This record gives sequence, C-alpha cells and structure tokens, in this order.
Amino acid sequence: MDIVKYKPIGVVHSPFKGGGGIPRQAAGAPDVAAQIEIFNEYIEGLTDLDGFSHIVVIFHLHLVQKGSLKACPPWDHKEHGVFATCSPYRPNAIALSVVRLESIERKILNISSVDMADGTPVLDIKPYIPDLNPTKAIRVGWLEGKIKDMNKSKSGER
Amino acid sequence: MDIVKYKPIGVVHSPFKGGGGIPRQAAGAPDVAAQIEIFNEYIEGLTDLDGFSHIVVIFHLHLVQKGSLKACPPWDHKEHGVFATCSPYRPNAIALSVVRLESIERKILNISSVDMADGTPVLDIKPYIPDLNPTKAIRVGWLEGKIKDMNKSKSGER
Repeated sequence: MDIVKYKPIGVVHSPFKGGGGIPRQAAGAPDVAAQIEIFNEYIEGLTDLDGFSHIVVIFHLHLVQKGSLKACPPWDHKEHGVFATCSPYRPNAIALSVVRLESIERKILNISSVDMADGTPVLDIKPYIPDLNPTKAIRVGWLEGKIKDMNKSKSGER
Repeated sequence: MDIVKYKPIGVVHSPFKGGGGIPRQAAGAPDVAAQIEIFNEYIEGLTDLDGFSHIVVIFHLHLVQKGSLKACPPWDHKEHGVFATCSPYRPNAIALSVVRLESIERKILNISSVDMADGTPVLDIKPYIPDLNPTKAIRVGWLEGKIKDMNKSKSGER
C-alpha cells in the first residue's frame, strides 16, 4: 500500500525538553500545562473549538527512532504485542491524547493534562465527545487492575 | 516542519464500497461488521490484543480528495471550524474509531461498530482503555444536545 503523508498543522511547546520524564499517559499528568501553536494557515479551522472542554490531539512521536512489534511496560515486566500496549515504539510513531483545553488565544491552544514532548508535530485536532465512546461490556485484557500503575509511570523509568 | 510519513500496517475489508452511505460515527453503526487484515510483517504485534473488547483504530481517509478549514454538518446547517468537527474533509485525512473487537484469527481482526470504507489503510491499533478518559466537567460546545443526530447521519446525505 502507498505511504501516507501528513503535513503538521502545529507544534507543541511543553516543559518536557527531552525523551525522559514524560508522563506515559495524559491522564497521569493533570497538572502539566503546555501550548499547541497552530500554524497560521490553519487558524480558521479553530472556529468554535473554544466551546469544548477537552480535545483529542493526534501527534507524531518525533523523538522515537525505531519501532518494535513487542513492548515490555516497566511496571509490568512482561512482553506484549505492541498493538496491545500504549508503547511509543510502534511501527508508526503516531499517538493520541485527550487533553483539557483551557483557552484559545488566536493561534495558541493552552492545554493541560499533557504527555507530549516539546517540539512534537501535531497532525490533527478533534473535539472530545465522550458520548461516542462505548461503555458496555468493556474488557481491558492484560491491563486489568493495572491502570493506576500505568498512570504513575514516566518515560525513561525502568 | 517536515512531512510525516507512515506505512500502513493493514487494510479494512468492509461492506462500504464507495464514499456514500458510510456511518459518520462508529457509535452510530453497532451492527456493521468488518475485518481488518494486518499485513504479515506486523502479526507479532497482535499478541495479547484478544483480551481487549474494544480497540482504537487510527486510519487514513483514502477516499478524501481535499481538506477544508470549515465544515457544515448536514444535520446542523451551520459552518464550524473543521477542528471543532468530525468532518472527514480535514487538512490531514486522518481518523480514529473505537470499534468492538469480536475475535482475532491470525492476521484478521473481526470487528463491529464500523464506520470505515472498504480498502481503508490502517496506520495503528491501540487498546481502548476507558479509565484513561476524562469524565469530569466535560463541555461539548456546539454539539450539545446534537449527538443523536450525528450518530444517525451517513456520508453523502445532505
């Protein structure tokens, strides 16, 4: 199949300058504030976004050099298929986070609950609509009972 | 910023052969069944995925020719910034759906609640973990009170 190409629509400015110490989940970093700077040509697309309390950010994990088909979370010590994990070391270094949208100042989105490194290229932003999420008969496989450990974990920790 | 490139890890086989008639949201299509065929080189990454009832599928909207910065949902009749909508006509034609994972047979994921066209390139699969989603103080802006209309809508309808 053809290679898929995307042009970043913006960039993250965050306190996480390197690869280490980044929360592994947005939900585990409620107090972390950051900005998304939307590039000038896309500002018009932000109209009405300020009515939403949370947004889904799709971004490229630009610090990841190489993917893997297996992942071993530091708080689990067992190897899993990468598609059954949130590991950043995936065949395509693509990630999504639901973050809180605090305010919008023209091209700057002030966000909190952030797990993104400084300089992260942003590919898309969508409104977060919890009513679309499934709520019945959910099973979370090997993660059952381990969500709290996952939220406490940061990158670079083993 | 540099162009971001991804190589599809799989392809969707679904009953929606063209651009019309596709449910606009996975949540609006609980009875629609489809398959994701994972390409051979990525099969190892599926290990342990079968424990999850739902998965997040990130995919490329390959039928979309051109993006726009404004979108006018057919059930709303008002224009909004595209990042405040789920319109497929976005600067980057990238989408995500939470679908039900019915079973896995080697390289085939049998899924339901599907809003993807046949032939859709799949970029990534992640486990769906509802405990990571925000639940407090949610506002959904212009979509308030309109979620049901959105779920009933299909592509090509005006």
